[in-house]
Amino acid sequence: MYTLGDLAQRLGLAFSGDAQRPLTGLASLAAAGPGQLAFLADRKYLAQLGATRAGAVIVHPDFAAQCPADCLLSDAPYLSFARASQLFDRSPPPVPGIHRAAVVAADARVHPQASVGPHAVVEPGAVLERGAVLGAGAYLGHGSRLGAGTRVFPQAVIYHDVQVGEHCVIHSQAVLGADGFGFAPGPEGWEKICQLGGVRIGNHVEIGACTTVDRGALEHTVIADNVIIDNLVQIAHNCRIGKNTAIAGCTGLAGSTIIGANCTLAGGVGVVGHVEICDNVHVTGMTMVTRSITEPGSYSSGTPMAPTRDWKRSAVRFSQLDSMQRRLAALENER
Amino acid sequence: MYTLGDLAQRLGLAFSGDAQRPLTGLASLAAAGPGQLAFLADRKYLAQLGATRAGAVIVHPDFAAQCPADCLLSDAPYLSFARASQLFDRSPPPVPGIHRAAVVAADARVHPQASVGPHAVVEPGAVLERGAVLGAGAYLGHGSRLGAGTRVFPQAVIYHDVQVGEHCVIHSQAVLGADGFGFAPGPEGWEKICQLGGVRIGNHVEIGACTTVDRGALEHTVIADNVIIDNLVQIAHNCRIGKNTAIAGCTGLAGSTIIGANCTLAGGVGVVGHVEICDNVHVTGMTMVTRSITEPGSYSSGTPMAPTRDWKRSAVRFSQLDSMQRRLAALENER
Amino acid sequence: MYTLGDLAQRLGLAFSGDAQRPLTGLASLAAAGPGQLAFLADRKYLAQLGATRAGAVIVHPDFAAQCPADCLLSDAPYLSFARASQLFDRSPPPVPGIHRAAVVAADARVHPQASVGPHAVVEPGAVLERGAVLGAGAYLGHGSRLGAGTRVFPQAVIYHDVQVGEHCVIHSQAVLGADGFGFAPGPEGWEKICQLGGVRIGNHVEIGACTTVDRGALEHTVIADNVIIDNLVQIAHNCRIGKNTAIAGCTGLAGSTIIGANCTLAGGVGVVGHVEICDNVHVTGMTMVTRSITEPGSYSSGTPMAPTRDWKRSAVRFSQLDSMQRRLAALENER
Repeated sequence: MYTLGDLAQRLGLAFSGDAQRPLTGLASLAAAGPGQLAFLADRKYLAQLGATRAGAVIVHPDFAAQCPADCLLSDAPYLSFARASQLFDRSPPPVPGIHRAAVVAADARVHPQASVGPHAVVEPGAVLERGAVLGAGAYLGHGSRLGAGTRVFPQAVIYHDVQVGEHCVIHSQAVLGADGFGFAPGPEGWEKICQLGGVRIGNHVEIGACTTVDRGALEHTVIADNVIIDNLVQIAHNCRIGKNTAIAGCTGLAGSTIIGANCTLAGGVGVVGHVEICDNVHVTGMTMVTRSITEPGSYSSGTPMAPTRDWKRSAVRFSQLDSMQRRLAALENER
Repeated sequence: MYTLGDLAQRLGLAFSGDAQRPLTGLASLAAAGPGQLAFLADRKYLAQLGATRAGAVIVHPDFAAQCPADCLLSDAPYLSFARASQLFDRSPPPVPGIHRAAVVAADARVHPQASVGPHAVVEPGAVLERGAVLGAGAYLGHGSRLGAGTRVFPQAVIYHDVQVGEHCVIHSQAVLGADGFGFAPGPEGWEKICQLGGVRIGNHVEIGACTTVDRGALEHTVIADNVIIDNLVQIAHNCRIGKNTAIAGCTGLAGSTIIGANCTLAGGVGVVGHVEICDNVHVTGMTMVTRSITEPGSYSSGTPMAPTRDWKRSAVRFSQLDSMQRRLAALENER
Repeated sequence: MYTLGDLAQRLGLAFSGDAQRPLTGLASLAAAGPGQLAFLADRKYLAQLGATRAGAVIVHPDFAAQCPADCLLSDAPYLSFARASQLFDRSPPPVPGIHRAAVVAADARVHPQASVGPHAVVEPGAVLERGAVLGAGAYLGHGSRLGAGTRVFPQAVIYHDVQVGEHCVIHSQAVLGADGFGFAPGPEGWEKICQLGGVRIGNHVEIGACTTVDRGALEHTVIADNVIIDNLVQIAHNCRIGKNTAIAGCTGLAGSTIIGANCTLAGGVGVVGHVEICDNVHVTGMTMVTRSITEPGSYSSGTPMAPTRDWKRSAVRFSQLDSMQRRLAALENER
């Protein structure tokens, strides 16, 4: 619980209204009650502002006059909402120390303020810096390292020679450092190319549940600072992902893909191997990126959804497009 | 092993033939031998009926005359087959009680007829009702709950504040309640929006292996009764999925998607955020759902598969479609 | 560390240069230093050969004259590189024996030269042959079997009645033998079809992280020898995959799909159920395979990526294709 005045101070915002007003949680404009804090981050919810029952609202000064409740005034209401969410977070804090049911190698280095959960395994030469957390059943491989304040949720697996920076979050079932998919065709089938590189992850990176980041074949797979990656994403060997880039769920990057800084890949995108995407590119959902992108901007592929009956007609015609084009050219030639 | 008479009684079906016939298992019409039970659920296998060597067949009364074997007569043979499969299931039953190698918090509540496997972890305030099973190495977070008869297979992870109803099945590596992918752009990179909601799952829900259901940002992510979800599916924060809906593998739902009741999403479908799909909608495989669907029916997107050489020609023309349309309009104007 | 002469002998290759030259690792032509071995496997890197600082290069005899460094002469340089990578692999070897923190059923059979890691679970009747490795926290279900030399990485889950052959690699969070997605519609919702089959996996198979291979409904799901499967792939119940086939990341096969031998499925492919793909088929990335393929060759679907503004125009026209075709036919009729 915070008072409005407390929140204004912690968030570095001006406010209007009752400094002593108690606020016990966050809610949307539509759902918030008198003890809750709401926010207006998008004009399309402006109609909801006038009707809100929230005790207070984070709002841009331009809209404060339309707010029936107390206000926290922010030039960036969505950012202020994010910071407020951190204040109201009630997720259970990790317990410092090494759980008696963990297995930690004698020559691993675990900071006294780090946390190793039950059934977690820390292999020889691995390091947990101050405040690092290896959740229940999680695995930290030989010589791998979690930087200060990095949290690994239960059951995530980090193979050997994976370095994770500071203040990262790795969700459950994520796998960092599994072998890249490298094989050479041989006379008796596929010959495995041992993946000799590791993984290097910067600071303030978040990696979602069931996401896989493979180790490099010869050099490292590299994820820069402030990258955020959603669930069920595949990052293949030798990918390099630039700062602040965001990758949504179910996206897959093939090997040696290079993604620039400040990019956003929506969900279900696929990127073929050995291409390069420059900085400041947005790729819309389920796009198939089959070549390098050298100009910032938004890119797409796919076809629009339609009722299946209508879609089938279009789909048949798609296969006839080359013939349609030739028929069209023939008519033009006859003019 | 059952006799034909036993099976008829347990399945509530009439039968024709030898009540004492022993049946040791289920098989397809083509593969079944004299000691096995087969079924005819689809007319397209009718030709196999006459040739079957099965000891008995679950069959609609309309086709009984064509069956060379004993019959179990069912108006819904596929449903009867499903029920028979449950009788013949030989999967190993869970062992009741708390395994000595599990870690269970003192104030967790584990019903005496519940089962907690080796290396499983039950956090403070968590609850397992009668007959609930937390498999080997699985994790049940703070204050989370498994309803009566719900089974969690090895290594699945359930974060804090996740409520799972009765008689659900959660397969291995599924992750319920990881953080939704919520971040606000800030001056120093992405600012995390703590995900303050939980997950609420109804009764008789099945969730596949490596499927992720994220917790809500402010309110809960909700999955209604009788929903079935396959492997490697992403359900983002604040999704709401209606009763009896089925979601096949590799599908991804972005945040705040609402899916109605009795829907079927085939494999590899992607649904953008903040859209709503009404009841009784079918979406075909790999469709990109980019807008709300307000009418029941079947919906699709994508292009048909072709030999790569042919496909390339069509794909090039796709990029020229707008120009083709203008050329066509010009010709029409010249008439 | 190897000398050039050592490497030549171990790889069965002729060499030119200093037999005593020490080589400590592998690197690309561009990155290699004087103590490292590089390789030229693709003519497109020929320009880099002349400039390399590598101590030695694996090279086809045709290009040896252009190599400024010592040479290992190979008719198949990429294959020789793969074998060299195995010599330079420094990944930590598993520790033989059963870890004190593992839980192994009394009637499981663990070869003295097998390895069971901390917090691993081996259920009754399960078998680990000579040199098999069950990593930390991994689970081997009732009656399941790991053949000689097969390695299961931490946290992978193998349900009951799953047989894995020799010299396989199963990466972390893979799930073998979870229930296939089989349900019959019933009056009270979906009725579960218990999945009575198992999984049968041949020799020299590699299965990636977070990949799922479901058990069969009545018969087994089958993966033949030398199949390689990347991360986050879904293999549904009753699939059968032929020898030497390679399946890249994020691909999904629906139930009862049959894939021939020597096929390659690129990333993000989807295959509908009950179709059959013959031997020697290549499917390009993100293709939707909606019918059987009976001729070897390369197959594709999808549309090309474009700037979103351009793509939107094409996408609108896609929905009008049938009308465009009819307008075109009308013009042709007017001739």
